[in-house]
Amino acid sequence: MSDLDRLRAQRLLQERGLDALVLTQPESFTYATGLPAGVPAMWRRAGGATALVPADAGARLGAVVGDLNADALARRAPAIDIRTHPLWIDLVDIEGLGTDAPADTATRVAEAYRRDNGGQDVFPPRPTTFSAAGAFAVLGDLLRERDLARSRIGIDLEFMPAADFATLQRVLPEIDWVDASEVLRRLRAIKSAREIDCIRRACSLADAGFHALTTGIEPGQTPKDMTRLWRDGVLAAAATRGETGLTGMWDYMSVGSDPWSGGGSVVRGAILKADVGCIVEGYNSDTARSYVFGEPDRIARDVHAALEGAFEAGLAAIRPGVAMREVFEVTVGAMRAAGYPGYRRGHYGHSIGASVGSEEWPFFAADSDVILEPGMALAFETPFYGKGIGALTIEDSLIVTDTGIEVLNHLPRELVRLG
Amino acid sequence: MSDLDRLRAQRLLQERGLDALVLTQPESFTYATGLPAGVPAMWRRAGGATALVPADAGARLGAVVGDLNADALARRAPAIDIRTHPLWIDLVDIEGLGTDAPADTATRVAEAYRRDNGGQDVFPPRPTTFSAAGAFAVLGDLLRERDLARSRIGIDLEFMPAADFATLQRVLPEIDWVDASEVLRRLRAIKSAREIDCIRRACSLADAGFHALTTGIEPGQTPKDMTRLWRDGVLAAAATRGETGLTGMWDYMSVGSDPWSGGGSVVRGAILKADVGCIVEGYNSDTARSYVFGEPDRIARDVHAALEGAFEAGLAAIRPGVAMREVFEVTVGAMRAAGYPGYRRGHYGHSIGASVGSEEWPFFAADSDVILEPGMALAFETPFYGKGIGALTIEDSLIVTDTGIEVLNHLPRELVRLG
Repeated sequence: MSDLDRLRAQRLLQERGLDALVLTQPESFTYATGLPAGVPAMWRRAGGATALVPADAGARLGAVVGDLNADALARRAPAIDIRTHPLWIDLVDIEGLGTDAPADTATRVAEAYRRDNGGQDVFPPRPTTFSAAGAFAVLGDLLRERDLARSRIGIDLEFMPAADFATLQRVLPEIDWVDASEVLRRLRAIKSAREIDCIRRACSLADAGFHALTTGIEPGQTPKDMTRLWRDGVLAAAATRGETGLTGMWDYMSVGSDPWSGGGSVVRGAILKADVGCIVEGYNSDTARSYVFGEPDRIARDVHAALEGAFEAGLAAIRPGVAMREVFEVTVGAMRAAGYPGYRRGHYGHSIGASVGSEEWPFFAADSDVILEPGMALAFETPFYGKGIGALTIEDSLIVTDTGIEVLNHLPRELVRLG
Repeated sequence: MSDLDRLRAQRLLQERGLDALVLTQPESFTYATGLPAGVPAMWRRAGGATALVPADAGARLGAVVGDLNADALARRAPAIDIRTHPLWIDLVDIEGLGTDAPADTATRVAEAYRRDNGGQDVFPPRPTTFSAAGAFAVLGDLLRERDLARSRIGIDLEFMPAADFATLQRVLPEIDWVDASEVLRRLRAIKSAREIDCIRRACSLADAGFHALTTGIEPGQTPKDMTRLWRDGVLAAAATRGETGLTGMWDYMSVGSDPWSGGGSVVRGAILKADVGCIVEGYNSDTARSYVFGEPDRIARDVHAALEGAFEAGLAAIRPGVAMREVFEVTVGAMRAAGYPGYRRGHYGHSIGASVGSEEWPFFAADSDVILEPGMALAFETPFYGKGIGALTIEDSLIVTDTGIEVLNHLPRELVRLG
């Protein structure tokens, strides 16, 4: 299912004088069409799977995909105008020929190949992998049929490799190609109900992992053990709940006083940090907590208390209609007021979704004019990394609602003592 | 440790009239420098981590990396000229200030911030994420110091997003930038001893997973169960061997007569296919086998026998000095001779390594003039996908040696009967 709001896309494209949006990044293709980008996505080159979003919200979505199993995609998304380009993989349809009839195998398989090939005996060779130029030519056919052959079209140049863009310009030179990465970012920043459901489930699984981590941790363990404990907790919760959408997990764990060293082991007084995400149907959660094993030293305790105050202050500022920089200012202002004038960071959180990284645009940053809107899924965070102390951080995922926010994590925010 | 052969790079760059190679893809940065690309790599944009490879093999490698923990990178790779650009994450060094001395925490932390900031009280803000333009300006400093400010430089435009290339051209307009993706591909196609060791370990783990899969499979199980059995076998072998380099696994499993449906479950006569890889220190293995649960039908048995013949014929052709298209011709020729004139595919294998996808250039393809050389790590494969039959495939990873090949997988190649 497409998660694209076609009316919103129409407004954003028309405001910028664009006739259509062409998407080549695998994640963006799936966002717009609801379909997998398929095997050619492995190389993260453009042309493997391409989506066409006409500005006119009444016009059909188009897609150019590899020909492997394209009939299954067409059955899955009958509303989309699907065209194909050949891949390196061949699939011959032997169904309906029976399996143990008298004719010899080679004759029977040859029949199937010939039938699939339109009755011809000369088989066109398959490309080494796939031809981006060929896929773009098929896109050109689609554009001509839509009277878009000489139009102004937005494209995702923050993804598209420069070599592939040169190919696109060569194959379709009469299109005025414009970088519309910003339109795509604005579209993806507002989530559909389905997308929010994925993120909610991802957050809940992550929380279960935190419970497993904090109850299982023992002296002498390392960041690798933290990873194992957290992941096992997530997998156990997914199994218990019958959650089949979990497609991945990521984590940044640290133990001890050097937060980016990758080393350290659990001793009395050590700071532990878990910054983690579950991925449900491609959608990321993003949550972080710090813990102390035993008693914290005074600096860790005091800094964490200040972070808690800044977190609560910033969180209270998040609601529809507020500019993201205002939340940045409240958050850093609270740390300044608590006596930490040197505390600084580029952002205190970001959008979350099904992007290539766990952090996606927009950000709670000093210069962000983005106005918070209902349907945004965000992570808000107040990290402090101190060599000689460790990583102290609080981060929750949340949804902006019509009237305020809904926090999707349910974990204590103080510096919890373990052991 | 860098896996780059500087003399080979010098020759390839000089042949193309290039003064240096600049690498912006995270995997290529790590290949050239031996260093992680760090947190900005999450977005797969250019500028987060950039490597400079002067054509002159005697000139020092350069790198522009994020400033988070850059001192640790410099200690790890003292031979590389490392420069930094600011990231969004701040790290303050509180070491040496003691942890429970009388002064209050805020005063002590403020001292640490001031010391890290060169004694200044005005703290420059950190960027929202990172500035590609800023990182490219630092690269420009490096180029000026090397007398390369007006030179002809190769760059990886098969990766670099077009928007980032536009930024690079704006920041460093006096460089003549040339797509040198082909030079990079040629360099990466010949592996160092360390890279081969990673691939060898990955293959051995994958084989252990095959043993777990074939002994554990039961009627009624699905592709997801195959994934679980194979992965558990890999993880168990890694634990037994103390293999700490395993960083990932991937798999394409299928059960039954519709090889790309994702569905199916194990019944009598079902074809099972496992096409899998382990990733050791970033390096992929690539191995595939098909199985039948019980007795195969005649078509599956006959086609697999033909594939075995083609596999053995193609494998026997792989040795130093042979063009990759010759192996393609021998392989497809063996299938034709066995009575399958329609059998076709874009390639019968590919290089393997630490690329973004499991298949990397060069390919055993009809038009490949690439001559096999010692040190190449390749996967060779003869897949057949038949709707109504299933996926029949044989694939091994191998190394080209001085005199022939060394196959890295040790699994039977016939259509093994399970159950």
